[in-house]
Amino acid sequence: MGFSLGCMTEKSIEFWYEFASTYSYPAAMRVERLAAASGVIVRCKPFLLGPILAAQGMKDSPFNIYAVRGRYMWRDLERICAAENIPLKHPSRFPQFGLKAARLALIGADRQPVGQAATNWCPAFSRAVFTANFAEDKDITQDDVLADILRNIGVDPQAAFAAANTAENKDRLKRQTDEAMERGIFGAPSMLIGEELFWGNDRLHEAIDWAAR
Amino acid sequence: MGFSLGCMTEKSIEFWYEFASTYSYPAAMRVERLAAASGVIVRCKPFLLGPILAAQGMKDSPFNIYAVRGRYMWRDLERICAAENIPLKHPSRFPQFGLKAARLALIGADRQPVGQAATNWCPAFSRAVFTANFAEDKDITQDDVLADILRNIGVDPQAAFAAANTAENKDRLKRQTDEAMERGIFGAPSMLIGEELFWGNDRLHEAIDWAAR
Repeated sequence: MGFSLGCMTEKSIEFWYEFASTYSYPAAMRVERLAAASGVIVRCKPFLLGPILAAQGMKDSPFNIYAVRGRYMWRDLERICAAENIPLKHPSRFPQFGLKAARLALIGADRQPVGQAATNWCPAFSRAVFTANFAEDKDITQDDVLADILRNIGVDPQAAFAAANTAENKDRLKRQTDEAMERGIFGAPSMLIGEELFWGNDRLHEAIDWAAR
Repeated sequence: MGFSLGCMTEKSIEFWYEFASTYSYPAAMRVERLAAASGVIVRCKPFLLGPILAAQGMKDSPFNIYAVRGRYMWRDLERICAAENIPLKHPSRFPQFGLKAARLALIGADRQPVGQAATNWCPAFSRAVFTANFAEDKDITQDDVLADILRNIGVDPQAAFAAANTAENKDRLKRQTDEAMERGIFGAPSMLIGEELFWGNDRLHEAIDWAAR
């Protein structure tokens, strides 16, 4: 019984990122635009990489643990940002703890409307936080820095912080991080289309192409 | 005094690779062709990654140490090889110790002519060793496997092994590995153009573009 109008499935990609992650920066700055050009919707998935690296035995960024990799990464990031016309200023603090920003980003993604913003403000917020971290050398662990960012994208900081700091939302970020690990994510940025995992800014185009198939 | 006909510098790229390295495989299969298309000469630089990873505290491939990274890497390699029409068969031994093959490759690169081959046979030899490892599941630590490969590319195995196994050549491979580490190489494949380092199969095009500038 019944009938079908055909499978009008929405093409989407999950974009998993961490605010401390250098390679998440150029990916976050481009993912919405590139996905839209391919008719693909982006699902913002902020998470914390720290617990995942800790499970691999790392207590710090691998780019700090392995200095030679760190030196390469910063040079590589310079080349990538130059090629994509993305501003870059080597931050004086690295990595910066992205916990507060990630809790806020979760609110932006799903708890709409918050304050004046009626739409999903997670992408705009995330781009602004990444820019503060990697282009403006701001301390993204500071409430006033995050509040300025929220105001600049038209979100009431007081309402957003209140929602971000509920026990429920804090737990939600933990569960999102657990989900990342369970689904095989070990670094950031990562893109998931169903169970198909793509890791790294280098795989952004391939991941979007996969989602658009 | 005197005059100049202009600077006719030869554009070249150093291709640093390890026979055990999975991502070196698709890079080695393409580097000569892609570089030639850009008028760039490839300088073969076989080296051993083991001592470099050991200096970073790793006693095994990071893809074995971190199982989740290993699972991802094999899937990622499948996608890369499929996209590039490069055959891939998950090897039953990983990583395979590339010492003997690397010593032979050094001979092919610089000690020409050896046996019947009058030209640099390092690229053809290297592609065949990688194919044996990652497409044919052969044991590349076995002399007979390497001898077959040499014969197939027109090189006398006896002469090549004799040259490869001199104390001088063994030491040369050690020095080449030391040089890799000194110049900031921490993984394979790596491409160097002067001091500009590119790491990974993902950077092959960018590295060749850099060399062709």
